[in-house]
Amino acid sequence: MSRIPRIVILGAGYGGIITALRLQKELNYNEADVTLVNKHDYHYITTHLHMPAAGTDHFENARVNILKLIDEFKIDFVKSTVVQIRTQDKKVILEDGTLSYDYLVIGLGGEPETFGIPGLGEFAMNIRSINSVRHIKEHIEYQFAKYKKEPRRTDYLTFVVGGAGFTGIEFIGELADRIPQLCKDFDVDPSLVKIYNVEAAPTALPGFDPELVEYGMNVLTKKGVTFKIATAIKECTPEGVQLADGEFIKSQTVIWTGGIRGNRLIEEAGFEAMRGRVKVDEFLRAPGHDNVFIVGDGSLVISPENRPYPPTAQIAMQQGVVCAQNLVASIRNSSLKGFEYKSKGTVASLGKGEAIGLVGDKKVKGFWAAQVKKLIDIRYLFIIGGIPLVLKKGKFF
Amino acid sequence: MSRIPRIVILGAGYGGIITALRLQKELNYNEADVTLVNKHDYHYITTHLHMPAAGTDHFENARVNILKLIDEFKIDFVKSTVVQIRTQDKKVILEDGTLSYDYLVIGLGGEPETFGIPGLGEFAMNIRSINSVRHIKEHIEYQFAKYKKEPRRTDYLTFVVGGAGFTGIEFIGELADRIPQLCKDFDVDPSLVKIYNVEAAPTALPGFDPELVEYGMNVLTKKGVTFKIATAIKECTPEGVQLADGEFIKSQTVIWTGGIRGNRLIEEAGFEAMRGRVKVDEFLRAPGHDNVFIVGDGSLVISPENRPYPPTAQIAMQQGVVCAQNLVASIRNSSLKGFEYKSKGTVASLGKGEAIGLVGDKKVKGFWAAQVKKLIDIRYLFIIGGIPLVLKKGKFF
Repeated sequence: MSRIPRIVILGAGYGGIITALRLQKELNYNEADVTLVNKHDYHYITTHLHMPAAGTDHFENARVNILKLIDEFKIDFVKSTVVQIRTQDKKVILEDGTLSYDYLVIGLGGEPETFGIPGLGEFAMNIRSINSVRHIKEHIEYQFAKYKKEPRRTDYLTFVVGGAGFTGIEFIGELADRIPQLCKDFDVDPSLVKIYNVEAAPTALPGFDPELVEYGMNVLTKKGVTFKIATAIKECTPEGVQLADGEFIKSQTVIWTGGIRGNRLIEEAGFEAMRGRVKVDEFLRAPGHDNVFIVGDGSLVISPENRPYPPTAQIAMQQGVVCAQNLVASIRNSSLKGFEYKSKGTVASLGKGEAIGLVGDKKVKGFWAAQVKKLIDIRYLFIIGGIPLVLKKGKFF
Repeated sequence: MSRIPRIVILGAGYGGIITALRLQKELNYNEADVTLVNKHDYHYITTHLHMPAAGTDHFENARVNILKLIDEFKIDFVKSTVVQIRTQDKKVILEDGTLSYDYLVIGLGGEPETFGIPGLGEFAMNIRSINSVRHIKEHIEYQFAKYKKEPRRTDYLTFVVGGAGFTGIEFIGELADRIPQLCKDFDVDPSLVKIYNVEAAPTALPGFDPELVEYGMNVLTKKGVTFKIATAIKECTPEGVQLADGEFIKSQTVIWTGGIRGNRLIEEAGFEAMRGRVKVDEFLRAPGHDNVFIVGDGSLVISPENRPYPPTAQIAMQQGVVCAQNLVASIRNSSLKGFEYKSKGTVASLGKGEAIGLVGDKKVKGFWAAQVKKLIDIRYLFIIGGIPLVLKKGKFF
């Protein structure tokens, strides 16, 4: 390559934006052309989406304009949707154009995985983007308004969340907090509102400390949530959900948080993938493609215990840092760095002033856990946008 | 009657609440038992409903708790829905009980009249109560959220208002004002939003001064409203409205303001009625029933020009005053007073800072007309609730 190498980053989620920001910092002048491609002109903070979905916070606090994060003199930004990745031609086909690359970073994020459960794709909603959570919030409010017009339809007031993983639990905590206000706003008797959390696994928050899980379930049960654990959803219909235990829950609002898979474009591009996730090499590259890095939900990293790490914001961010280092190293023909995930702990919010989590190996719960959660959120804002972003969005967390 | 006569007032709309408030003032201690029956525990200000429907004001500013208006020591209040009026037994059947009366006041309000146009009853919404306008507001917001999930569905952004009478025109003024904010909130290109006002009559605001109508239509056209005047709606379907001129407007939001009729209970009770409206005698009594008074949308009063007055808040309020006087006179065996409608003028709002109207025989338009409109609204609050109510709700008008 005699000309300047071209780096194209697909997706401005956690992995993509951190890669871009790190490249911006580490690359010298004219060392590479970097182009960031994203469907929207904003980056969104996926770990915060459960709040605008329930309506307990404004969605503006969960998104940041990309041009406020990157330096346009160093990185080009293209707002477009990726249609196809052509590794043989080193090209990316966009909805309205084509980009050539020497190095590609795929950070396209995940898609809901419905495990073939009939109707979930058609009739359930997902917490996955600003548009989807704005839709969920409006949908919930609309159900209250509709109930007041048809007071026999208590199914309008029944809310089913499929999946008791992080997203499901955090959303349910917010929703339970929001219900009293919605009941007041629409003159609805709160005893008519039902919130179900249905999880096929034998426990909520699988893999989490059992004592903390129990604490969390108690908090949410007191807020009015009914748990159906170790109960699979057999089918989702326009009338509600059929559970494997025979019960049918009548509901107009089913929110599926029970599974995530990688982006379908990854499979369509011919990468060997399991549910759209590519088992990347130690340098985060797609096997057989030394110039293609995959970060975030599209990548699969195996732990020393030989289990795949769950796709989280934390791992995507750490990948972004290493991915940028390895891109610079590739360009400079120096040696690449192996990726190793270091868990800094995990905190799940349970609504206002309540959370559970592990910080290092220390269990935290209740009010202090909620403060730690806030700190984690603020730390992220600081990483991507510095003090100004913390001041702009952080106060609302 | 040796015992104290019982007066039952059905409905706490303009006519009913004014009748009750006047009786409360004019009756002596133990002169009569007065019971006010209403479906909700609040009175709503129908002339203000176009604002919460469009979302330009909170619905709380369009309703007042009935127990804050009446004196419970003087008037009983029953929150219930009327099921049947039995004049032969002097009884009213409620959803959860029965009331006997010596004198009855029917102030049950109106219902939408669809003139047999197919689909309007099923698929169009109406501006008629707190519940219905809360539904309209949420419905509109939900369409924006849905559009962002399905960006090909521009019919989500098309709003059709059937009828260019007072309610239609006032609602359209507010809706046009709200659209820019909704577009901002949902990241929607304002040029995609369409508002249609369809009216079968040869003019908007039939019967109103033509110069003012032209002014009003210009104001609204500049705000982005498309008028289809002298164009009937042939059918309303789940996909939109079929117009008589052959055009089909694709829309998920049709709001029908084009007709009003009296309550069906009036016909079911055996009163001679035209579209649920009874041509009352000069004392506001149902013909052949000296103990039944009808006020508001259920009554029909003929003008000296031999045309029925349109059902408005203004006429209902004036009827309430005379009705109360005639109830007192009936009880005291003194002579009744003939009802004569005195128009104090009419002002139609066209959204923020714009209105058209006649005050006496003087035409007003623009900013000053909007101020007059506010004064009319505040005057009403003062009449029913005095200074405290003006201070509580009036500042928002």
